[in-house]
Amino acid sequence: MTIRLDETHDAKRQSWVASANGHTDFPIQNLPLGVFSVRGDTPRGGVAIGDEVFDLKAACDAKLFSGDAEKAARAAYASTLNELMALGAGPRATLRKQLSALLAADTSESSRAQPLAAKLLHKVTDCTLHLPAKIGAFTDFFAGITHAENGGKRRGSNPPLNENYRYVPVAYHSRASTVRPTGVAVRRPYGQRLAGNDKLPTFGPCLKMDFELEFGVWVGNGNAWGEPIPINKAGEHIYGYCMLNDWSARDIQRWESAPLGPFLSKNFGTTISPWMVTPEALAPFRIAQPARPQGDPKPLDYLWDNTDQREGALDLDIEVLIHTEGMRAKSMPPQRISVSNTRHLYWTVAQMVAHHTCGGCNLEPGDIFGSGTISGPTPENYGSIAELSFDGTRDIPLASGEIRRWVEDGDDIILRAHGRRDGYAAIGFGDCCARMVAGKGV
Amino acid sequence: MTIRLDETHDAKRQSWVASANGHTDFPIQNLPLGVFSVRGDTPRGGVAIGDEVFDLKAACDAKLFSGDAEKAARAAYASTLNELMALGAGPRATLRKQLSALLAADTSESSRAQPLAAKLLHKVTDCTLHLPAKIGAFTDFFAGITHAENGGKRRGSNPPLNENYRYVPVAYHSRASTVRPTGVAVRRPYGQRLAGNDKLPTFGPCLKMDFELEFGVWVGNGNAWGEPIPINKAGEHIYGYCMLNDWSARDIQRWESAPLGPFLSKNFGTTISPWMVTPEALAPFRIAQPARPQGDPKPLDYLWDNTDQREGALDLDIEVLIHTEGMRAKSMPPQRISVSNTRHLYWTVAQMVAHHTCGGCNLEPGDIFGSGTISGPTPENYGSIAELSFDGTRDIPLASGEIRRWVEDGDDIILRAHGRRDGYAAIGFGDCCARMVAGKGV
Repeated sequence: MTIRLDETHDAKRQSWVASANGHTDFPIQNLPLGVFSVRGDTPRGGVAIGDEVFDLKAACDAKLFSGDAEKAARAAYASTLNELMALGAGPRATLRKQLSALLAADTSESSRAQPLAAKLLHKVTDCTLHLPAKIGAFTDFFAGITHAENGGKRRGSNPPLNENYRYVPVAYHSRASTVRPTGVAVRRPYGQRLAGNDKLPTFGPCLKMDFELEFGVWVGNGNAWGEPIPINKAGEHIYGYCMLNDWSARDIQRWESAPLGPFLSKNFGTTISPWMVTPEALAPFRIAQPARPQGDPKPLDYLWDNTDQREGALDLDIEVLIHTEGMRAKSMPPQRISVSNTRHLYWTVAQMVAHHTCGGCNLEPGDIFGSGTISGPTPENYGSIAELSFDGTRDIPLASGEIRRWVEDGDDIILRAHGRRDGYAAIGFGDCCARMVAGKGV
Repeated sequence: MTIRLDETHDAKRQSWVASANGHTDFPIQNLPLGVFSVRGDTPRGGVAIGDEVFDLKAACDAKLFSGDAEKAARAAYASTLNELMALGAGPRATLRKQLSALLAADTSESSRAQPLAAKLLHKVTDCTLHLPAKIGAFTDFFAGITHAENGGKRRGSNPPLNENYRYVPVAYHSRASTVRPTGVAVRRPYGQRLAGNDKLPTFGPCLKMDFELEFGVWVGNGNAWGEPIPINKAGEHIYGYCMLNDWSARDIQRWESAPLGPFLSKNFGTTISPWMVTPEALAPFRIAQPARPQGDPKPLDYLWDNTDQREGALDLDIEVLIHTEGMRAKSMPPQRISVSNTRHLYWTVAQMVAHHTCGGCNLEPGDIFGSGTISGPTPENYGSIAELSFDGTRDIPLASGEIRRWVEDGDDIILRAHGRRDGYAAIGFGDCCARMVAGKGV
């Protein structure tokens, strides 16, 4: 779906919210949607702007919106945004336009909003950020081709990439009930694994804890069961994006996965950034699908769309940082251990939607996809610690003097994403951050 | 969890509902829970009794219940039973006792109910039966060891069973949004597959459609995230059972599954029988876990419980019938093509619950498990057409003169289950039946 750039993308547009104009993930060109509460009150829909959360209900009560934007803002009164998401792309775009006008410096609209600032804005530090939607289903794709190749090498496959990879946007169903937003610690799972050189499994805490650098895709309006979404309509069903850490217990995964894929090794917890960054906000960072390597097949017809090829990929800088207990004790900042870019994905989000539904599976508002781990071509670009440490065989030295081969208890893992393009305001996703903590046995 | 046999299991107990006393899946000893509507009115909770549906709301309005049973019946006013299921085992057992007394012939309780029969009972033929719960997550296990072995043989694995099988209750997450109750036709999916001897995939309708003979397990009260359910508490979380046809597109599955397991080959549709048969109703059919073959390992501690070993398996006769368009044209009845028994499962339901949660994954009321295909040791016991036709290489002759190697459009596939034990009333699950119909491309 082509999204036209308009005045909401104007890099010169400033906001009367001062913190939106400096160094922030959330300038007025971003306006991501989420769910917040203030000091324990009822969770409801909001929009990130600088260091503040804009309260959609308060704005509605003050009659700041009209038409479809009002309809959208009313749908965001709830403690989850599924109802808003079901409205689809149109009301979201209208809401963005009116929000941008209300929050811009020196517009006639802003003169209606700015006097109400005390009611409309909450310091994000006073807010709790919740999951933006009740997640119906979580599907994890495998669209990072370098990660797939590195995994095949670890498994000893030759060639490392399965025969189907260049044809099928491979995916598996994962667990929705254990997805949590930024800031919620994740417990190290216990499970069956082969420890050391053991030939027989033992039950105990995961010994090879990993993160995965992925982005998440929120589904808006769904499709009817049995009615595939053609690829040229796929964009209408995408509601927003987030960053997603698909925590992975590699030792459990290795032992349990034959023949039906990962289960407990993935379902103990997944961390996402709490803001839904909209397709409108990402429009400046769309790029052509990177050329496939010579000899790779053209996608089958149901996965091929000229518009999608021309602008269906995303150019977002993404990174992983670690903040260990040792670093925190020394008041050191988090350390970057991987830097990659979403352009390294082999499949576009539209291709994921078309594939997911081609057999009739229905998507629902609030479903979420993971992209798969987005590793780039060189070791600095690897998006999981299994790749960075070559399956735990090499030390990753940290500035604190510590080393890592796997994630340890007390480590914060932080994923970040930024869109940067000359002539456009840079935007960010906000941190996707969680601490790994000790688990408990049965 | 041990469930004591009591007067509700008394084989001599008859009902004043005449159709409950003859040949029926639903005698007074069964009393399964479900959701029904009558001629388009609001769906609500009910209980199957003979050829009738007992209306829990009408009974509540008439003040027929007291205490926990009233609480349970009120929770069943909704169009899904998730709220009831969250109450757990206690209120369900109390409801059963009061229902049994109200529906029994010649009790003081029945004299309060029988005069209200016109309000309390609806002919099942006037009712639509819905999914009994909003399904949060659908997990499919792989606990039928013969099916697992036969699958390994088809894939050319040697030995056919993966090394982990006798240790891990293998499972994968499947798709909740496409589970449908009995009577809803399922569309044949389109997808990528290698047709005939093709080396490259093409997109088209599934050429190898299969059914899978499974039972389903409904989760009642859940567990907190990060808090495993010990195996000796697992029974408290099981709310009921159904039959489950995990339709499988074998050609799509073969091509897509490496390395993360089945996805589109399973997520286009799953059919379940609409009644939740309770653990209380199944208590007479509990048996000891069948002895493992010599040399098989003892399950790890978190999967081992003496009570579960003694009575955690189920002795239910299960079968698959096919009713083709050809049979229907000749007014022939459905033909049985497989007969098996739930005692062929390698893992108990309690072991499934303990395994699913051992790493901290939380279950929620309304989650459903599939058992995995329950094939028995001989070809007559095979629970999928892939096994019955030896991967489509042998004809399955039908009484209508037709043959099958895979499921064809227009075929009704019917799963049935019955508990039969000397001295106890036989009970059934009701049909799990759906027709395979032509799908549509993109």
